[in-house]
Amino acid sequence: MFTLDPQLQKDTIAIASLPLCELLLMNDANYPWLILVPRREGARELVELSADDQLQFLQESNAVSRLLQTQFAAEKLNVAALGNVVAQLHIHHVARFVSDAVWPKPVWGALPAVAYQEDRLAEVIELIYGSLAMDSGLEVVF
Amino acid sequence: MFTLDPQLQKDTIAIASLPLCELLLMNDANYPWLILVPRREGARELVELSADDQLQFLQESNAVSRLLQTQFAAEKLNVAALGNVVAQLHIHHVARFVSDAVWPKPVWGALPAVAYQEDRLAEVIELIYGSLAMDSGLEVVF
Repeated sequence: MFTLDPQLQKDTIAIASLPLCELLLMNDANYPWLILVPRREGARELVELSADDQLQFLQESNAVSRLLQTQFAAEKLNVAALGNVVAQLHIHHVARFVSDAVWPKPVWGALPAVAYQEDRLAEVIELIYGSLAMDSGLEVVF
Repeated sequence: MFTLDPQLQKDTIAIASLPLCELLLMNDANYPWLILVPRREGARELVELSADDQLQFLQESNAVSRLLQTQFAAEKLNVAALGNVVAQLHIHHVARFVSDAVWPKPVWGALPAVAYQEDRLAEVIELIYGSLAMDSGLEVVF
């Protein structure tokens, strides 16, 4: 049975269940940072997913990428499956800006996370929901 | 017309032309590190590729992932499209090991590159070619 890794649970805010993945928001106001976690027990690498799951992952990754571009005006996307610390397969989608605090370096381990203030968190979640609800063909459970 | 970014050209060794991507080996003996560059002029993000190109990219990324697992015994894969420094879309595939010099940190900017010695480079290229040639359904131009 799939259960979310405790470290991911601790570091993030659950946003929605997409057809394949749990969509999580990293609780770090430094950058708009979303994470997709395929609900596949024991999966550690993208290449281990079935062909059908890979196609579904593409759809969900595209939806998340588009929402970071349209709702957060991402200047660059960083899309990465690393998993050196948390082994459970999870794919980072980070909106980057030339003006962000660590540009052009990668975000992992660069800065301590800054937890969202309640007001800003509500705004961010609304931006995400608005975009997902409009995205073609994604069945989303909020 | 597609031309390879000069920085990528400088940092890597050209290995093969896959149906969609140029396959490059990072000239850094610290880690087995391959890069896929879709031959699409002006592409900066995976989400910008057409649906057909995305499917083909998946095939090529899977082939590269499998070869890092089988030929280099990768303990973990790091697959990432960052592009904060080199804007041309390129997707890193790095074989990671608990024993490698910067584990569990990301490799980008972590250590100066160590150029391959000639003998080791020949071995590495042979491992890559052997795996690609056996991979199902990839048309490869060496």
